[in-house]
Amino acid sequence: MVDHVPPAAPATAGRAHATGGAESYVVGVDYGTLSGRAVVVRVSDGAELGTGVHEYTHAVVDSTLPGTGERLPADWALQVPSDYVDVLKTAVPEALRASGVDPALVVGIGTDFTACTMVPTTADGTPLNELERFAGHPHAYVKLWRHHAAQGQADRINELAAERGESWLPRYGGLISSEWEFAKGLQLLEEDPEVYAATEHWVEAADWIVWQLSGRYVRNACTAGYKGIYQDGEYPSREFLAALNPDFADFAETKVVHEIGALGDAAGTLTAEAAGWTGLPEGIAVAVGNVDAHVTAPAAKATQPGQMVAIMGTSTCHVMNGSTLAEVPGMCGVVDGGIVDGLYGYEAGQSGVGDIFAWYVKNQVPQSSVDAAAAAGTSVHQYLTDLAYQQPVGAHGLVALDWHSGNRSVLVDHELSGVIVGQTLATTPEEGYRALLEATAYGTRRIVQAFTESGVPVTEFIAAGGLLKNKHLMQTYSDVLRLPISTITSEQGPALGSAIHAAVAAGLYPDIRSAAEAMGSVERATYTPDVANADAYDALYAEYLTLHDWFGRGGNDVMHRLRAMRREATRASSGPGSEGAGGTDSVEQTAADSSIGASA
Amino acid sequence: MVDHVPPAAPATAGRAHATGGAESYVVGVDYGTLSGRAVVVRVSDGAELGTGVHEYTHAVVDSTLPGTGERLPADWALQVPSDYVDVLKTAVPEALRASGVDPALVVGIGTDFTACTMVPTTADGTPLNELERFAGHPHAYVKLWRHHAAQGQADRINELAAERGESWLPRYGGLISSEWEFAKGLQLLEEDPEVYAATEHWVEAADWIVWQLSGRYVRNACTAGYKGIYQDGEYPSREFLAALNPDFADFAETKVVHEIGALGDAAGTLTAEAAGWTGLPEGIAVAVGNVDAHVTAPAAKATQPGQMVAIMGTSTCHVMNGSTLAEVPGMCGVVDGGIVDGLYGYEAGQSGVGDIFAWYVKNQVPQSSVDAAAAAGTSVHQYLTDLAYQQPVGAHGLVALDWHSGNRSVLVDHELSGVIVGQTLATTPEEGYRALLEATAYGTRRIVQAFTESGVPVTEFIAAGGLLKNKHLMQTYSDVLRLPISTITSEQGPALGSAIHAAVAAGLYPDIRSAAEAMGSVERATYTPDVANADAYDALYAEYLTLHDWFGRGGNDVMHRLRAMRREATRASSGPGSEGAGGTDSVEQTAADSSIGASA
Repeated sequence: MVDHVPPAAPATAGRAHATGGAESYVVGVDYGTLSGRAVVVRVSDGAELGTGVHEYTHAVVDSTLPGTGERLPADWALQVPSDYVDVLKTAVPEALRASGVDPALVVGIGTDFTACTMVPTTADGTPLNELERFAGHPHAYVKLWRHHAAQGQADRINELAAERGESWLPRYGGLISSEWEFAKGLQLLEEDPEVYAATEHWVEAADWIVWQLSGRYVRNACTAGYKGIYQDGEYPSREFLAALNPDFADFAETKVVHEIGALGDAAGTLTAEAAGWTGLPEGIAVAVGNVDAHVTAPAAKATQPGQMVAIMGTSTCHVMNGSTLAEVPGMCGVVDGGIVDGLYGYEAGQSGVGDIFAWYVKNQVPQSSVDAAAAAGTSVHQYLTDLAYQQPVGAHGLVALDWHSGNRSVLVDHELSGVIVGQTLATTPEEGYRALLEATAYGTRRIVQAFTESGVPVTEFIAAGGLLKNKHLMQTYSDVLRLPISTITSEQGPALGSAIHAAVAAGLYPDIRSAAEAMGSVERATYTPDVANADAYDALYAEYLTLHDWFGRGGNDVMHRLRAMRREATRASSGPGSEGAGGTDSVEQTAADSSIGASA
Repeated sequence: MVDHVPPAAPATAGRAHATGGAESYVVGVDYGTLSGRAVVVRVSDGAELGTGVHEYTHAVVDSTLPGTGERLPADWALQVPSDYVDVLKTAVPEALRASGVDPALVVGIGTDFTACTMVPTTADGTPLNELERFAGHPHAYVKLWRHHAAQGQADRINELAAERGESWLPRYGGLISSEWEFAKGLQLLEEDPEVYAATEHWVEAADWIVWQLSGRYVRNACTAGYKGIYQDGEYPSREFLAALNPDFADFAETKVVHEIGALGDAAGTLTAEAAGWTGLPEGIAVAVGNVDAHVTAPAAKATQPGQMVAIMGTSTCHVMNGSTLAEVPGMCGVVDGGIVDGLYGYEAGQSGVGDIFAWYVKNQVPQSSVDAAAAAGTSVHQYLTDLAYQQPVGAHGLVALDWHSGNRSVLVDHELSGVIVGQTLATTPEEGYRALLEATAYGTRRIVQAFTESGVPVTEFIAAGGLLKNKHLMQTYSDVLRLPISTITSEQGPALGSAIHAAVAAGLYPDIRSAAEAMGSVERATYTPDVANADAYDALYAEYLTLHDWFGRGGNDVMHRLRAMRREATRASSGPGSEGAGGTDSVEQTAADSSIGASA
């Protein structure tokens, strides 16, 4: 179990439950990659009454540094913390106005964030990029989840952990990501010791925003576990860190360790300053921070063991509770209380899903299809889907591997890449598109299979995210998985999930489970398997598995060699210091990618 | 050695060699898939003085039958013989006019044709489709080389031949094509016995056109050997044919056997009627027929052992002379005197080359690239090439198999299909295009390797055909093969080759070899290997080979299973009789595809 924060005393403590007297409301705020979205939600039933959106002024900083114009290397992705505060100042008031709700009736605010997104701060939480002396220092900025320039550090962490047999390594499927806290922290130390020395806290953005709201720094149990290697009450040891780099020995104890807050607890109450930004009452509950994917589980009423929620957007994140601790090969992580208190929260993911479809549409679809889609008054994605699904399963004669952005589960190998087999001179653009849709379904089946084989059976599959709207895709998942697919009803899954946490933090529900039951929204078995199609897909899945294992488990390491050749060729042609120039890896997406819904 | 036709007595016999008195001229006519092209050539030096082209009125008949409008099944491809005669009536006079040459100075005419393209005729050569009683019979029409509806018959021929250990089978790399004379003949028997019974001659179009010119039916040694299974003076035995179908027992002896003409001999002299069509003098020499690919060898001065000519268009055909008879695994065929008299003519091929590039541009290239090409004032093919070759070898991180139209050599398996490995979200359209260009170079290297390993070494590689104009592609071939690439100078390789045969048939050169030396045109070592690139390509070729053998030699038979699944799915959805509906196989191309130059 995670440590508990001494309960704060929210202004609403003791207030009558919403079902009794006047209705109460909460605000959920979802921080994505490019924007923040606020929603005002009724506590009694989860009704979403108003929404506000704010696009970050600086979006993703991946080419030049604001102010100085300094050019960033490939694979870098930074953000500017003041953009996050602007969401509070604009999107929250906008949502309030749109809802027509009296702000005085709002009893709590909850937030979720992309992860792992890291802010280096002073002792009082001031981001270092706001200090004048660090104006020209890229390392003083927020490192966004998709900052991939710490791969070298991640590799060393993994090698050393495997060599030393660190007990936490299997909790992450055997591999720590370059996106996570320790890899990024080590990069900071090694590339800008001055900023590293000034970093008094190495803070998840999920917690930094809660700090801004409540004035208190509380680490949420979710990111601490999944991204901060916090397992069984401990971070990686001083000896381990020293072996990475002597100057890194005290990294955890001096910059990372902090009180942990359980999900659904209040981190504190809204400060007068934050009340001014948001238009919300000072003193209402501020929930402990959370991650966009994980917070979606309660929004989809998925708080019981075996209910797997897949947030399907540019990438897919799978989160599921389990009553026992199991080591699932290739999972992203398992964290005690990582989704709801009292259960083990499992996470897995597919690093490319909607991203792959978007890549295909941008790069591999001719104008004729684009024109036909326009003539049909539909999106290119929908047009290709509709056309491809006029054919029966297997008629395209194709099978693909969905590794264009690497494989996050179950192979955990970002150097893998895409494959398509079976193209003929008669293969159409829509057939290639369908093969990619199907490939992602096979990828999901492989993950479900891994969980089930490890003693953590998946009993229900609940889909959320922007890809929901592709009905053929959803039916394919049902057929391929041979499972009914339930679907989240809310179009603001993460924001609703944050609102649910706010309601619990405000004390209006005893726990997330009961809040989710009242406020979450799911349609059960929206899609059910077609047996004939499922049989046909079984044959294609068998082909997928053969390719998966041959290309992914050492049968033919061609993908690694091609990647190395690419790096070498690019380095040789661009000169030193330009490794990876062209940003060929920079569009890789994480399972926690929050641009959910943006892609298809 | 092939049988010799008793020499005809052309009107020019005894005329002084052109280098002495007045210049002499010959006409070469190249019959392609969609048009016929005539060229007037000076005998002394091969100068091309005038050209004429005629597009066939009926083009390729693959959807509905002319006249009746009857719908054709998938995989059918027919033609109308009168279109061929129209070429004589229009393209030849046009070429003459364009050349300014006095027709009286023309001493011979030679022709080449697509193959295997078959005409069912009466005893006097009348095509059966011209008989009123067969108006509604598709089988009465010409079966074009790319008619692929006799695959079932080809499969039976191959099974039985392998079972009986027929001695001719190894001469064809172990597999007879569905495109060839016997498979098409067996289909004719089994699907339209009435037309079969009326077929008094089963004639290669290459020979039919010579018959129209000279009034004599002479089988050319080239198609008889490569397409007619004529080996060591014999066709497949009566017993073999009876085992296929009792009614097929006398097929060879009653419909196929006929006198054979050696290449470069005269089949006869121009009739008065044909003189009227063409405007050429009656009585001039008419050369024995030939195949577009094979006739290109003398046009490129490639008449010595070890000189491999690759005619690179929609597909690539490789022809080479050898002084010894060897069994090269997976070659298309070896025929005594099949290219020039006195040497063994070897043929190999890649069933898809320019076709694959064209498929990619049509189906997998976005409008942005098309627009950029237009803005740059270049073709999409050239734009993609130029852009892709700004990167060093290996920078795209891709490797592909060039089997979108099956594999003709060395695996001889038309059920194979394309593969591309290594795509990421950063893969661009031009990178995919380059990977396909390179894949065809690897396919060629595999063929060259097979010849060299079988004791028929390739000592010079000479490129001809439309793909010549892509300089980056040519350089890639040189780098991948580690061979200098010579290039044919004529833009009308096949027609020039036919003209060379006409000059020999007219008696103005003693043999094809000397005529080729005087009239052929080649630039030696236009491209030479870049050693650094060749080293890098070696690594990629090794990857190609691994994939080649795994997918192509039983390591993973996924392509066959996908093909079977596709057939099954399509059949199930379209009902009986519509197998392959949608024409999914119908665009497959043969190595003898004569739309050379049309693609890139």
